[in-house]
Amino acid sequence: MIAVLKQGVTEKQRDSLISWFETLGLSVHISEGEFHTVLGLIGDTSKVDTELIEGLDIVETVTRISDPFKSANRKFHPDDTVVEVGGVKIGGGNFAMIAGPCSVESHDQIIEIAKSVHESGAAMLRGGAFKPRTSPYDFQGLHADGIELLLEAKKITGMPIVTEIMNANHLPLFEHVDVIQVGARNMQNFELLKELGRTDKVILLKRGLANTLKELLMSAEYIMAGGNEKVILCERGIRTFETYTRNTLDLSAVPMLHELTHLPVVIDPSHATGVSRLVKPMAMAAAACGADGLIIEVHNNPAKALCDGPQSLLPEQFADVARSVMTIREAIGK
Amino acid sequence: MIAVLKQGVTEKQRDSLISWFETLGLSVHISEGEFHTVLGLIGDTSKVDTELIEGLDIVETVTRISDPFKSANRKFHPDDTVVEVGGVKIGGGNFAMIAGPCSVESHDQIIEIAKSVHESGAAMLRGGAFKPRTSPYDFQGLHADGIELLLEAKKITGMPIVTEIMNANHLPLFEHVDVIQVGARNMQNFELLKELGRTDKVILLKRGLANTLKELLMSAEYIMAGGNEKVILCERGIRTFETYTRNTLDLSAVPMLHELTHLPVVIDPSHATGVSRLVKPMAMAAAACGADGLIIEVHNNPAKALCDGPQSLLPEQFADVARSVMTIREAIGK
Amino acid sequence: MIAVLKQGVTEKQRDSLISWFETLGLSVHISEGEFHTVLGLIGDTSKVDTELIEGLDIVETVTRISDPFKSANRKFHPDDTVVEVGGVKIGGGNFAMIAGPCSVESHDQIIEIAKSVHESGAAMLRGGAFKPRTSPYDFQGLHADGIELLLEAKKITGMPIVTEIMNANHLPLFEHVDVIQVGARNMQNFELLKELGRTDKVILLKRGLANTLKELLMSAEYIMAGGNEKVILCERGIRTFETYTRNTLDLSAVPMLHELTHLPVVIDPSHATGVSRLVKPMAMAAAACGADGLIIEVHNNPAKALCDGPQSLLPEQFADVARSVMTIREAIGK
Amino acid sequence: MIAVLKQGVTEKQRDSLISWFETLGLSVHISEGEFHTVLGLIGDTSKVDTELIEGLDIVETVTRISDPFKSANRKFHPDDTVVEVGGVKIGGGNFAMIAGPCSVESHDQIIEIAKSVHESGAAMLRGGAFKPRTSPYDFQGLHADGIELLLEAKKITGMPIVTEIMNANHLPLFEHVDVIQVGARNMQNFELLKELGRTDKVILLKRGLANTLKELLMSAEYIMAGGNEKVILCERGIRTFETYTRNTLDLSAVPMLHELTHLPVVIDPSHATGVSRLVKPMAMAAAACGADGLIIEVHNNPAKALCDGPQSLLPEQFADVARSVMTIREAIGK
Repeated sequence: MIAVLKQGVTEKQRDSLISWFETLGLSVHISEGEFHTVLGLIGDTSKVDTELIEGLDIVETVTRISDPFKSANRKFHPDDTVVEVGGVKIGGGNFAMIAGPCSVESHDQIIEIAKSVHESGAAMLRGGAFKPRTSPYDFQGLHADGIELLLEAKKITGMPIVTEIMNANHLPLFEHVDVIQVGARNMQNFELLKELGRTDKVILLKRGLANTLKELLMSAEYIMAGGNEKVILCERGIRTFETYTRNTLDLSAVPMLHELTHLPVVIDPSHATGVSRLVKPMAMAAAACGADGLIIEVHNNPAKALCDGPQSLLPEQFADVARSVMTIREAIGK
Repeated sequence: MIAVLKQGVTEKQRDSLISWFETLGLSVHISEGEFHTVLGLIGDTSKVDTELIEGLDIVETVTRISDPFKSANRKFHPDDTVVEVGGVKIGGGNFAMIAGPCSVESHDQIIEIAKSVHESGAAMLRGGAFKPRTSPYDFQGLHADGIELLLEAKKITGMPIVTEIMNANHLPLFEHVDVIQVGARNMQNFELLKELGRTDKVILLKRGLANTLKELLMSAEYIMAGGNEKVILCERGIRTFETYTRNTLDLSAVPMLHELTHLPVVIDPSHATGVSRLVKPMAMAAAACGADGLIIEVHNNPAKALCDGPQSLLPEQFADVARSVMTIREAIGK
Repeated sequence: MIAVLKQGVTEKQRDSLISWFETLGLSVHISEGEFHTVLGLIGDTSKVDTELIEGLDIVETVTRISDPFKSANRKFHPDDTVVEVGGVKIGGGNFAMIAGPCSVESHDQIIEIAKSVHESGAAMLRGGAFKPRTSPYDFQGLHADGIELLLEAKKITGMPIVTEIMNANHLPLFEHVDVIQVGARNMQNFELLKELGRTDKVILLKRGLANTLKELLMSAEYIMAGGNEKVILCERGIRTFETYTRNTLDLSAVPMLHELTHLPVVIDPSHATGVSRLVKPMAMAAAACGADGLIIEVHNNPAKALCDGPQSLLPEQFADVARSVMTIREAIGK
Repeated sequence: MIAVLKQGVTEKQRDSLISWFETLGLSVHISEGEFHTVLGLIGDTSKVDTELIEGLDIVETVTRISDPFKSANRKFHPDDTVVEVGGVKIGGGNFAMIAGPCSVESHDQIIEIAKSVHESGAAMLRGGAFKPRTSPYDFQGLHADGIELLLEAKKITGMPIVTEIMNANHLPLFEHVDVIQVGARNMQNFELLKELGRTDKVILLKRGLANTLKELLMSAEYIMAGGNEKVILCERGIRTFETYTRNTLDLSAVPMLHELTHLPVVIDPSHATGVSRLVKPMAMAAAACGADGLIIEVHNNPAKALCDGPQSLLPEQFADVARSVMTIREAIGK
């Protein structure tokens, strides 16, 4: 970490700042320039709060050279993490498709979709039992019953299941869930992340609507700091000014995250675009730039198609997406 | 709500859609145009999910004419809500300044600041006991001890206290807290909002970093739908591309929210700008455009000024801000 | 276009509005609902200013059903436009790579790069002669000399050339230029667009940093309305809050634009990310989701690598990117 | 400027970089840390391209300590610039209101508005003769006739006039115009800025929709570098995700710009919000935080109110805004 002091800082102020850095366990390398004094801070700066230092009257700028995340940092863990759950691997060259409905609605619905996506190549089943909705008046999910139905589908198809948690108090209900999803709106619900860090479940952590990649990695760090290193990162679109798509899918996050971290990265083209016609091209693009997996919404009931979201595919459409994604994977030698 | 059907929709499809709307308790007014059929949906459409309908293959566009929020809606509650807590009123012409440190750090710190801001005209004391930090390695607050210290400051000064909650399980610790703050990162932590809706505490709900005013009102609605109507809204800056300021303070939110809702609106110029030099002009601007209050960070310890954030004022600076704000309030006849 | 009138609008106000619509050449279909009157406007509404109508006191909302762009609209022109220039085709299944340096710097530089990228499969040569720079003190390009050097490279390699225009008065210098680029900062320089609409040059129109796809299409419309239909659209990253990348590449723009317009769409992964390591994965992703071409920055001078931007590849790196992109193209059967 | 080199950089690479900096006229101060070498660059770094240096393989980070703008920089020009035009002063404690219609439409319209706003306290008259419109099919202004009408209004009322230029070739038409406006979409039309830098007209430079304050200052620098230092900056709202307002007014730009530059700063609440009901509170807020002026849209024709935008006030409403703004100005002792 490099701190540049303002012009006119007195020796006393400088020394007081240096002593303070030293109490934080850092050694300080001083370089006096013509106009500015530059302090090089050496040691474990990951626990130093940059904003605090930048706020000091005597400091011009602070530049962090090392990243504030450690457990998630590829520099300290050069090999890809391979997350394994119920026989399915993600990361380190292993690719997995996760498919299923937005919400679990009924026994027949979830079993039918599960069978169908399993046949088409999905490795895991997703489905919402607890649904975060902007409005308190919208359908909030089947809760415990939804999880029961997912577990039945798991028994029948053998696929591990992925479902979202919204409250750490619900953890007992997730005992047999394979992958616990943290939704975009809870990405910085630090209390929830800490609780999940104390479990041994695989966590699928979605990027918040307006969160930087650094913040995503810091949230992964919350889970990992608790001892749980089984984290899968998920890019699902960020909020921009564009209106033809619901969000803007940031695919450059895939290679950028692969450079910064050893954790696997999956893409959710359904929520990212909010337009089912865009799911296939975006899934193919995600595979082409090296994503470790996809999470895709699939619905099955033509009679109730009325109630299915604009971002959801029919099972036969998912099969087509899966084939195209696999073609890309083969072409790039994966 | 107006739904425009696509060209080429069959009569059967149209009627099936209409029946479905009718099962939702709506009456449907049909207007056949040359190219498009337009359906006017009449009744309580606040529970209708616009995205679902927009996603239907046969629907071109949906336009909501009435707002999806009801309890918070000024149309159904034309008079300003006046929130009263410990003798302090906010809203309906009542203006209150809330001041205090970012984090509660020690007995002397909080008592000294509390006395000082009280003298300068602050009506309530703020201070963080549970701190949401991007990094798990940053200081997370004194927790229960922090709340104890705030309560001591309350006893001495008589000021009601405001402090942030991050976990509904901590509610017992907030028994004597006057105003519970929901931070920006938890604005869409719906499980927390529901729990707060079941309490009788005043809730200070901060707008999320990238949330629209409509989403802020829907989150207020979550609290109010549970029976707790004592909600104060707080604009604290939104995330944009600008880098000189930490966030961009959206002051037009003040008159816009006053039009949309009867709830009081306060401004947090400290977090919004992240620059202490901007707190005074932005506080004055907030008063000039009709804000119902301000929440301002104040620190007191020159020796430890090192550790105080860039957005924080000294007590004498706060006194100056308070005087200027009052000058504006008087000038506009408030 | 559907206009919903406010509750309480008088018959006189309504009729006055209707007459006004009729003077614009529209026929109006009236539907009286219980609370609202809905007007359906039929005819050529592309010239109607939605904002003006929305601003009227008596109007609740206006919804445009048809798009405001006509010449660029796929609805009126279902077949892909194939732009052909100097024997190179883009669009309608034809894919072209455009490569070259950020700025033309010298004879040797441009000739060497041109030969190299030509061998690696580039179909056109790009190079800046007029450079838009944020600072007036930065290098602004070689101007006329730069264009001369590009033309020499064209003579030697046979590749058509692409270079940016910043001022319509410079058009005479572009007489032998094959493709004229409009940069992101000039996307809404309507005076320039109008001038280019009067030429018969191929125009490469880059999306502005914070412009929607609709605005991009309206800018294309400015060129096409003048009679020049040879427009290639280019997505080059939009401005968001993310900081690891210079901009955020919006790849969903490729399939979305293909749905909205018949014009070809190319991707600029160099400027979009600002990070040369991300050019290859993003180029592959662009090919996978159906882009009609790529525009990539290549530099050649290891001794002067110092001065080359962070987003630029060496010729051998470009060759590798080109091979990977072709592999993707073949895999998806293109 | 501080450049931190990557770990493992060889002495030869380091020395080659240093020589290069020296050829740019900079002296270099070297500080070798345990892991990193830090170079302090001393001299006129305003002409150094940070991005180029950051892009070098051997450079970890670059931090600019001095600002890239010079003529506009308050550090080198501590006193406020007072722009004077036709007897009206802006800046340095002088406040001016600029009012008038969006577009000049007719003799009666502009004369009537001009008289009315003059009486209410406007110091200058604004009106569009060349209108930048998103769509080529929208009304583009009366052009030369519009300027003629403004000049008539000037003759009658004595008010200097402000109108927008879109093309440097139109400059002869602006001979008698007092203040030339550069619109948001042309803020980075550098060719236009350079031309205006060669004139002796007062320039009102509007911030682009998605431009940072630093970019705004760099655009001012383009004009000033040409010799014309009479620049007024204008904040008119930036593009965000919020939809209730057309843009988001960034009022913190006022005190922030006052710190960074000596140029006057005016606020356009009409375009910033796009909602006429918000013009008054935002104008008051702008005055409270120290803006040097306001530019406000006023329309006059109740019969044609139909065609006036949602952001425009009637003359009597403007009079009310002007009184409230003056009350604020007096209260804060200005």
